[in-house]
Amino acid sequence: MTIKLIGFNASPNTLRVLYVLKELEIPYEYEVPSNFAHIKSPEFLKMNPFGRVPVLIDGDFTIYESRPICHYLIREYHGKYNSTLLIPSDIRKASLVGQYLSTETCDYTIPVGKIVMQEVISRLYGGSPDPEKVKEARVEVEKVLDIYEKILEGKDYLVGEFSFADISHCPGSYLAAVKGGHKDLWDARPNVKRWIENLFARDAWKKTLEETGNN
Amino acid sequence: MTIKLIGFNASPNTLRVLYVLKELEIPYEYEVPSNFAHIKSPEFLKMNPFGRVPVLIDGDFTIYESRPICHYLIREYHGKYNSTLLIPSDIRKASLVGQYLSTETCDYTIPVGKIVMQEVISRLYGGSPDPEKVKEARVEVEKVLDIYEKILEGKDYLVGEFSFADISHCPGSYLAAVKGGHKDLWDARPNVKRWIENLFARDAWKKTLEETGNN
Ligand SMILES: N[C@@H](CCC(=O)N[C@@H](CS)C(=O)NCC(=O)O)C(=O)O
Ligand SMILES: N[C@@H](CCC(=O)N[C@@H](CS)C(=O)NCC(=O)O)C(=O)O
Repeated sequence: MTIKLIGFNASPNTLRVLYVLKELEIPYEYEVPSNFAHIKSPEFLKMNPFGRVPVLIDGDFTIYESRPICHYLIREYHGKYNSTLLIPSDIRKASLVGQYLSTETCDYTIPVGKIVMQEVISRLYGGSPDPEKVKEARVEVEKVLDIYEKILEGKDYLVGEFSFADISHCPGSYLAAVKGGHKDLWDARPNVKRWIENLFARDAWKKTLEETGNN
Repeated sequence: MTIKLIGFNASPNTLRVLYVLKELEIPYEYEVPSNFAHIKSPEFLKMNPFGRVPVLIDGDFTIYESRPICHYLIREYHGKYNSTLLIPSDIRKASLVGQYLSTETCDYTIPVGKIVMQEVISRLYGGSPDPEKVKEARVEVEKVLDIYEKILEGKDYLVGEFSFADISHCPGSYLAAVKGGHKDLWDARPNVKRWIENLFARDAWKKTLEETGNN
């Protein structure tokens, strides 16, 4: 039975899962709910009581929350369709992937998401960005990018080799930097610029943008 | 070489790691920095560029971020000092532990942490809680506890059996409900009440509170 991913094209959490599906070349079916109300319906809430996307259905197994969905796909399908390794088998290296996933969730994506909210999501709903909020978010993003600039000193990827930790930073960054027009923040820091451009340049990411009409 | 954990007694993220160390009965050394400035020193920033606790040092391996530290300990030391299994070996069950760790991080601990900030942390610094902020935080906590009440219907623990997903919810809940005096929110929901009281009653948690003077 084909894996089914339910998500929205403008949802960075959905894009995270699509990027992983494409890196691992896992066959899947992608379903976009016809309207926002659907994800608050009793039927949908049975799958995810928080009423949110993404949700992944693999036969009789249903899972929500984008990062654990990706972990599931990586553990269950690693080596099945190609040899891409997104989490190293070494426990220490795998734990460092976890470390950077945690800073992505708690430190990076929260301020980056504020830019996405103002510049991308608000426009989707016919609104416009609040310049004061954008300015505040930029200051927060600068702070975290300064730390990433040090972390990325002398390496191309967070744990050395390309991993799920890098992938997980990509959707928010792309929406804020490229779609939202704030790439200057990334460009001002050579290590961060090299890193993020490598991520944006990957085939799997380009195909994700194409499939979701974000290119 | 003994594992070293660097943390603060009032830090919920430190308590999370201590709870896991005690569940797994791993020998460790616990170091509390003599003052807050220490975690912003160049020496400390070399270990954790974010300048925060907890940090774990295991021989020549250093890792920060409380949840990945716990994951590391569980993977590396599982079965070594006792037979407690905090993450099931089955990929689907393990992925559901991840799912609830993600809701803990993104949905549960953020509002619960606001109560902790007002009721516990502010007092530590000689301040006092802002009643308006406490009221707002309570409304947010109620919303997420309503969802947990459904998730915990018919089960004692989040994935059925006791796991790291449950542990990870404990420190914030304890500080907000017991130390902060807002246990009524948990008590009003029978499934949530049963769940959290089971967690508070565990030996490893009681020892964690004792070691950190939180009892
Ligand atoms: N922590 C969740 C967050 C999911 C989330 O916030 N999804 C958004 C789209 S990106 C959504 O469905 N929002 C609808 C809502 O919150 O009502 C994850 O990583 O999947
Ligand atoms: N996501 C991190 C957060 C760590 C954190 O916020 N630590 C607090 C204590 S609970 C801290 O060291 N704060 C000092 C600061 O942020 O300056 C984790 O889970 O370990």
